[in-house]
Amino acid sequence: MHCLIGYFCSMSLFEEKSPKRTPLSDLGEFGLIDHLTQNFKTKQSSTLKGIGDDAAVLAAGKGRVQVVSSDMLVEGVHFDLSYAPLKHLGYKAMSVNLSDICAMNVVPKQVLVSMAVSNRFPVEALEELYEGIYAACARYEIDLVGGDTTSSTSGLVLSVTAIGEADEKDIVYRDTAKEGDLLVVTGDLGGAYMGLQILEREKAVYQENPNMQPDLQGNEYVLERQLKPEPRVDIVTLLKELDVHPTSMIDVSDGLSSESLHLASKSDLGVRIYEDKLPMDPTVLSLCDEFQLDPTVPVLNGGEDYELLFTVNPSDFEKIKGNPNFSIVGHMTPDKGDYYLIAKDGKAHPLNAQGWNALLQKKEEKKSTS
Amino acid sequence: MHCLIGYFCSMSLFEEKSPKRTPLSDLGEFGLIDHLTQNFKTKQSSTLKGIGDDAAVLAAGKGRVQVVSSDMLVEGVHFDLSYAPLKHLGYKAMSVNLSDICAMNVVPKQVLVSMAVSNRFPVEALEELYEGIYAACARYEIDLVGGDTTSSTSGLVLSVTAIGEADEKDIVYRDTAKEGDLLVVTGDLGGAYMGLQILEREKAVYQENPNMQPDLQGNEYVLERQLKPEPRVDIVTLLKELDVHPTSMIDVSDGLSSESLHLASKSDLGVRIYEDKLPMDPTVLSLCDEFQLDPTVPVLNGGEDYELLFTVNPSDFEKIKGNPNFSIVGHMTPDKGDYYLIAKDGKAHPLNAQGWNALLQKKEEKKSTS
Repeated sequence: MHCLIGYFCSMSLFEEKSPKRTPLSDLGEFGLIDHLTQNFKTKQSSTLKGIGDDAAVLAAGKGRVQVVSSDMLVEGVHFDLSYAPLKHLGYKAMSVNLSDICAMNVVPKQVLVSMAVSNRFPVEALEELYEGIYAACARYEIDLVGGDTTSSTSGLVLSVTAIGEADEKDIVYRDTAKEGDLLVVTGDLGGAYMGLQILEREKAVYQENPNMQPDLQGNEYVLERQLKPEPRVDIVTLLKELDVHPTSMIDVSDGLSSESLHLASKSDLGVRIYEDKLPMDPTVLSLCDEFQLDPTVPVLNGGEDYELLFTVNPSDFEKIKGNPNFSIVGHMTPDKGDYYLIAKDGKAHPLNAQGWNALLQKKEEKKSTS
Repeated sequence: MHCLIGYFCSMSLFEEKSPKRTPLSDLGEFGLIDHLTQNFKTKQSSTLKGIGDDAAVLAAGKGRVQVVSSDMLVEGVHFDLSYAPLKHLGYKAMSVNLSDICAMNVVPKQVLVSMAVSNRFPVEALEELYEGIYAACARYEIDLVGGDTTSSTSGLVLSVTAIGEADEKDIVYRDTAKEGDLLVVTGDLGGAYMGLQILEREKAVYQENPNMQPDLQGNEYVLERQLKPEPRVDIVTLLKELDVHPTSMIDVSDGLSSESLHLASKSDLGVRIYEDKLPMDPTVLSLCDEFQLDPTVPVLNGGEDYELLFTVNPSDFEKIKGNPNFSIVGHMTPDKGDYYLIAKDGKAHPLNAQGWNALLQKKEEKKSTS
C-alpha cells in the first residue's frame, strides 16, 4: 500500500521497508556518524562549526561563541552497574561531556541531562545518580539547566549536553595543527583502562563466590580514573595563564593513538609519538606487570582517561617544558597518513586508530557469546 | 566494605546501596524531575533561566540569549516502530524539540541528535531515520551540528537538543501571565490523539490477520498529526509581524488541560477554559463519533499536538481576533488553584492535569498485563 501521510509518499506503513540490510558493524561507530552526516551542509550563519569536532561552535554576537556538545551513555555498553556505583556514574557522565567542552579550550558552564530509566530503579537510585551529577556541578561550577526524564523499556540511558561560552578567538579546533608543532598530553594515560581490568577481574571473582570481598586495595588511583574521571577544566585556565594558545586540541576519550590520528588527519599532517615520552603512573606500570601487559598498549589504545591532547608551536616550548601537567610526546610531520610510534629501541611502528568502538565491541561480544 | 574511591566515601561497591525502595510510579514523570532538581540552585550569571520552562535561557552578550532544550524519545514508550515509519520518527523527534524552542517565542536554529541503536537495525534503517531528521532540517532551516551515536542493548533511544537565539526581550516564559489575560491556542487540538487511536486499532487488526491491509483512508489528517507533527515556527514569526508579545507561553505536548494548568500555576493564577471555544478539526469530530468518545477529552487530555498555547493582554484582542491561526479559548483568573472548564451547558468543571505521563503509563501497562 502507499503511505497515506503525504510528505513521505514513498513510505509504507506496516511493511518491511529496507530490502537491503547492511549490518551496523560494517561501518563501526565513527563510520556510521560519517556515513549519516557526510552530505549535510549547514546553512545558518551562526553555525561556525557543525559536526566534526569535540563540540559545535555557535556565534553568540560580538565575537563571543557558545560551544555545545552531547554524549549518550548506555547501560551494558558504556557502564556496568554491578561495579559502577550510581553516584560515580552520574559524575562520570558529567566529566565525559565537560571534557568535550574543555577540548575546545573553553570552560563549561551549563549542562542539560536527559535520562531514560526503567521501573526497576527506585527513586533512591536516581537520587544517588543525581548526587553524582550535583557533585560534578559543585566542583566545576556548572549549572544544570534542563533535560528530560522518561521511562525506559530496559536499561538506563543518560544523555548529557554540555555548554560553554568563550571569545571566538580562544576556540581551538582539531584541524589546525601545523607541521613541526609539538604534541602535548596532560596528566598520565592508561589508568582508566587498568581500572576497568581490575573491576572486570573482581566482578568475575565475585560472581564465582559472592562471599569474597573484592580486592581493590592499592589500586585506588586507577579505579578512580575509571569510575570517576575528572575533566581538565584546570588546563583551560592554566593554558590561558601561561599564554599558550594550542594550535589544535582534542580530549583523550579513545586512547592516545586514535586521538593523535584525529589531530593529524584532520590537519592533513602526519604524526610521530615517542614511546619513551609516554606519561604513566607507577600504579599503571605495576598493574601491567601483574596483568602481563605491555604498558604502551593501555596508553595508546586504552581510552577513557579524559586528558587533553594538543599541539603547540615550537616557540611555546619554554612555556610548556618542565610543567608537571604536560608531557611532550611527539610532533607533527608533513605527510598525511604518516603516523608512527618510535619505540624505545628506535624502531618506527605504524600507529592505527584502535579507538574504543562501541559498535565493534558489540560485534565482538556477540561473536564471543555465539 | 568501604568504598575505596575517595570522594564518595560513604559508597560501597558490589553492594545493594538503597535499603529504601520507592517505586518511580509513586512520583510520576513531573514529580520525579521536581524531586530530583528542586534543591539545585544555579550559580552562573549567564544562566538566565534553568529548569522549569520549555527551554533554558543563557545570556550570550549584548542583550542576546541562547535558548536550549533537550528531549528523549524511547522505543516502546514514545513510539512503536510497527506503525511509526523511521522517517516519520526522525521528523517527529525534531518537531518535538523545535516546538520547545518555539514555546519560548524563539525561532530554532540548530540541533544536536544523539541515538542509541541496537544491532537489529541495519544501516539502511538509520538512513531512513536521518532522512526524516534532514527533512525537518530542510523545512525549518535547521543545522544539525552534533550529537552522538552508540549501540544499545535493546531498543532505539533518541535524544535531541534544540537551540535558538534571540533578543532577551523577545523571550516568553511560562510564569508571567497576568490576571485577565486571554488564553489563546494555535491550530486545532485532539488530532494527534485520534491518529494514535486509529494506528492502535489497525495494528490490532493487522496482528490478528497480517493479510488485512490497514484502513487508513480518509484519516490522513489525524495520522499526520500523530506521526509527523509540525513545530509552529510560523507562529513565532507571525506574532512578531502582528506585534503581539504574549505574556506567557508553552507548547501543547501533554494536552490543553495540563498546559493551561502549567501557565496558570506557574503564574500564580487561575484559568477558565470554555468548551464551546475549543478548536477541533471536522475529522476529529467524526472520529470521536466513530470511537464513541466525547471530543472534549482528546482536546483537553490527548496531547502531542505541538500547538502553541499562550496568554495575551486583552489590549491585543484586536490583533488576534479573526486570525484563522488562533482560537481564544479562555482567560486567566485571579485565584491560584482555581482551574475550570466551562462546559457548553454553562456548568463549571474542575480541570486537572491529566498530562501524558510516561511513567504512569508504564505503570498502567504493567498493571494491565500482570
